[in-house]
This record gives sequence, C-alpha cells and structure tokens, in this order.
Amino acid sequence: MSEALTAAELQERLAHSPFIRFLGLVVTEAEPAEQRVTMIAPMRPEFERIAGSGQWHGGPIAAVIDTVGDYALVMTIGRPLPTINFRVDYLRPAVNTALTVIACVRRQGRSVGVVDVDVMDAKGALVAIGRATYATA
Amino acid sequence: MSEALTAAELQERLAHSPFIRFLGLVVTEAEPAEQRVTMIAPMRPEFERIAGSGQWHGGPIAAVIDTVGDYALVMTIGRPLPTINFRVDYLRPAVNTALTVIACVRRQGRSVGVVDVDVMDAKGALVAIGRATYATA
Amino acid sequence: MSEALTAAELQERLAHSPFIRFLGLVVTEAEPAEQRVTMIAPMRPEFERIAGSGQWHGGPIAAVIDTVGDYALVMTIGRPLPTINFRVDYLRPAVNTALTVIACVRRQGRSVGVVDVDVMDAKGALVAIGRATYATA
Amino acid sequence: MSEALTAAELQERLAHSPFIRFLGLVVTEAEPAEQRVTMIAPMRPEFERIAGSGQWHGGPIAAVIDTVGDYALVMTIGRPLPTINFRVDYLRPAVNTALTVIACVRRQGRSVGVVDVDVMDAKGALVAIGRATYATA
Repeated sequence: MSEALTAAELQERLAHSPFIRFLGLVVTEAEPAEQRVTMIAPMRPEFERIAGSGQWHGGPIAAVIDTVGDYALVMTIGRPLPTINFRVDYLRPAVNTALTVIACVRRQGRSVGVVDVDVMDAKGALVAIGRATYATA
Repeated sequence: MSEALTAAELQERLAHSPFIRFLGLVVTEAEPAEQRVTMIAPMRPEFERIAGSGQWHGGPIAAVIDTVGDYALVMTIGRPLPTINFRVDYLRPAVNTALTVIACVRRQGRSVGVVDVDVMDAKGALVAIGRATYATA
Repeated sequence: MSEALTAAELQERLAHSPFIRFLGLVVTEAEPAEQRVTMIAPMRPEFERIAGSGQWHGGPIAAVIDTVGDYALVMTIGRPLPTINFRVDYLRPAVNTALTVIACVRRQGRSVGVVDVDVMDAKGALVAIGRATYATA
Repeated sequence: MSEALTAAELQERLAHSPFIRFLGLVVTEAEPAEQRVTMIAPMRPEFERIAGSGQWHGGPIAAVIDTVGDYALVMTIGRPLPTINFRVDYLRPAVNTALTVIACVRRQGRSVGVVDVDVMDAKGALVAIGRATYATA
C-alpha cells in the first residue's frame, strides 16, 4: 500500500482521458487504507435533463459512477481497469448542485474488483448509488 | 397503439433535453407493434476514453443505453419516464465508430417497464448490453 | 415508526411462506430507526454446491438476499413487497458456515424501496453483496 | 465446438450438485452452435411463496437463472464456472406451473462470459429475466 497514488496523482491521471476531463472531476480525498476515494462532479450545461430545469440527467450520473468507482481501484493498482459491468439506482433528483461521489472497494480479487459508489447532492442527500465490477487481472 | 409516436416525433422530443441533444442521437427506426426503437449515436471528441485512442469511454455508452431504453417506452406512453435503475455490461471496445442502439421493451407494466438495449459498432459487433427499469406510473 | 414490527414479529411473519420456512432464517436484530435487520441463514444439505464440499451454492445465497432485503422494508411497512429486481455479487466461497445477513434500506420511496444486503460467513468475511428494489406502492 | 456437451451429458453433470439435484432441472435442448440451452424447472412445495398460493417465490427463480445460465457456458467450456454477479427482473407471478428456462450466451470472453436467461410459465408468458456474468478464466 506504500505505492498507493495520492489525491494529486489521481487528479493528474484523470486528465489522460478526454471524457473524464470533460466530466471535470475534482479529487478531494484518497484513503488507500480504507480503499476509498471522494470526488466532486460539477454541473455542466450539457448535463441538464430538461432545458431550464437545472436537473442532472441520469446519463452523466452513471458516467460519474463508472469513473469514480474505477479510480478507487486505480489508487492501489496504479492503472485504469476495464469495467465489466455496473448497476446504478436513482434515488432522488439532483437539481442545481455539484455532486459528491464516494467510492469504496468492497472486494479486490485477482480477477475482478467490486466497488460501491454513493452520490450525494450539496446538502448530503443521497441522489444515486452504483455498484460496479472491474477487471483486475 | 394508434397514438404511438413516429420516428420523427421521437426525434423532435429528444431535442427537449440539453443532455440528449449533446449525445446527438438520431432515430432510425420506431416500431410500436414490437415496442422497439433504433438510434445511431455518433462519436464525439468529448467521449474518448484515452487521448488519441478513438475508443468510446464506457460512461457515454451507459448514458446512451439509459436514454434509448427510455424512448422505447416513450414511443407508446408519450412522455419521458424516470429511470429506476439499470445495468450495463461491456462486451468489446468500440473504436472509431458510431454506435447502433436497439432498445426493446420486455415488459410494460402499470408501475414499471423493463427494456433491453443492445449496442453495436458499425460492423455489427456487440459492444455493450443494457437492461433498464423505468417508472411507468 | 412506533408501528414497526419487532424481531419476534418479523420471525412470525417469515413462517407464512413455505419457501422462507425452508430457508430457516432466524431474525437476530431489527432496528427500525436505522431501517436495518439482521438474520442468520443456516446451511442445509440441499444448499450444497458440490457433493461433499460443504460450500453454499450461489442460488440459495441469492434467495436469502432477496428475502432478508424484503424484510428490511416489511419491518416498517408491515407487509411483504414484490421484488422488482435485484443484483447479487459473489465475493468469496462460503464453506461449512451459517451466513449472517444484514439488510439496510437505502431509500424508501412512495413507489419503490432500495435495500443493500451484506452476507458474511461465521468469521465475518464478506461472502456476497446484494442490492434489491421492491415495489412499495 | 466438436467437444460441446450434449443435453444428456449436461443432465448428468447437473447431478453432481446436491442443490441442482434439489432444483430438479431437466435439460430439454442443448444448441452449441447458438450457445443456447433450455431446461424445465418443476414446481416443488418448498418453493411456494405463500402457503396455498401455488406461486413460485422469487428466490428459487433466481437460483434457477443462476444455474441454467452457467450451463449455457458449461456446454462448450466443459466445467462449471463461478458466478461473478447477476441481475434478475421479475415480470409476472408464476402460479401452479413448471418453468421453461432458456439461457443464451451473449459473449464468451477469455476472462468472463455473459449470459441472458428468459423464464417462462407453461403458457409461454415471460415470468422473469436474468443477466449473469461468470468467470471463464
């Protein structure tokens, strides 16, 4: 675990991907001992569900879950891992808010890793939850 | 079913959402009798996984699945439905290609609808598959 | 919440279902304030994966997740709810052990409820995790 | 593919597992060219949801999906594969009926295989659908 990437190093890695740069994720916490990362996802005009609503479309929320979940494993493994599959459940609308995204590794095995991702609005209300499996081999 | 929306009407509806406009989806088929819609999703520079790779990031693929699945129900119900949850499985990389996305309703119930979504590259190879549940009440 | 069912009442309700009786679940904790229930699932010869292995087959683990998840909502709603869908991830084999199953409600909405379920072996190792959606309307 | 197991061989393999024997699955079709297997799952008193209802509990339906999905890959790979995860969606109650279960491989990769499973009652109505990922490495 002495090799785990820091928050600043994760931030630098995110920039390698044009899509992730577009998401504009900001790493706010990287806790390798607990295999947990936290990022902020700011709202963008392109992410709006209905014109004028200020509400996040579910699509970019799913994309954020996929990405932040991956980086919970990147922190200790050191490279991006292909997503095998993931599930997202939408719990509440997210309106005029940045998202706080917390990803925790539930199991890091030799061939797959499983990560839980909680997405909250600025008031701390749970907006969506994700569960993703990545190839670690 | 006489009220089902046509491909042109679905195309017009898609434009109400800034995020879906950003996706740039083009409706190519709307079959209300089979509850199936087909759309094309063009590649955009913002969707690239790694700079210079030409590969779709999984995030926008998930967003496309969520959206096209919804419109398979919109076709007969006439309004966008909130996503309850969905799963996406990634089967192959999609590189330098538009995506063909086919969504089929498996069950349209009073409270929920379930839709399967297949995503193919320009050669017809299966890139990803989605299964989504929407609130129909 | 004053109407929440107690552990003894949940135990009594479980017996209404021949399948749940067959599972042999024992309620060990019911915490309505935290919307969390804990049950023990004993091993049965019929649940063995390979003859002589002592290992749980994944099928009964999935069935346990579906059931205990439901009862986390039953505790406060007072009646069994139809499962809309669920996902189960298998993390480790469970061998010669009873299972401890903890179900926590993540969101109880007007039309659906979402519950997370953790399954542990007798040593506390995480064996499987489930995420289930039930119809609450 | 010349090595693919026949329906009779699959039937024999099923008997190695006490749990699968308990399910009582009968292989009715094995199509290696299409990577599709069909099995019948008879009702048992232990599978009843509510006493006297004749309705299948969702738990054994999930177990059947996990098992039949696995054997769609066993047919060509020749050995049972660990389930990584699966999702089941319940579409209609199954009452006083055997289940017909059709599993189709969507992708057989080097490390994982993905299988879709449709479950029908005796009248051909769709009761539940599953999507499962197995470790093929």
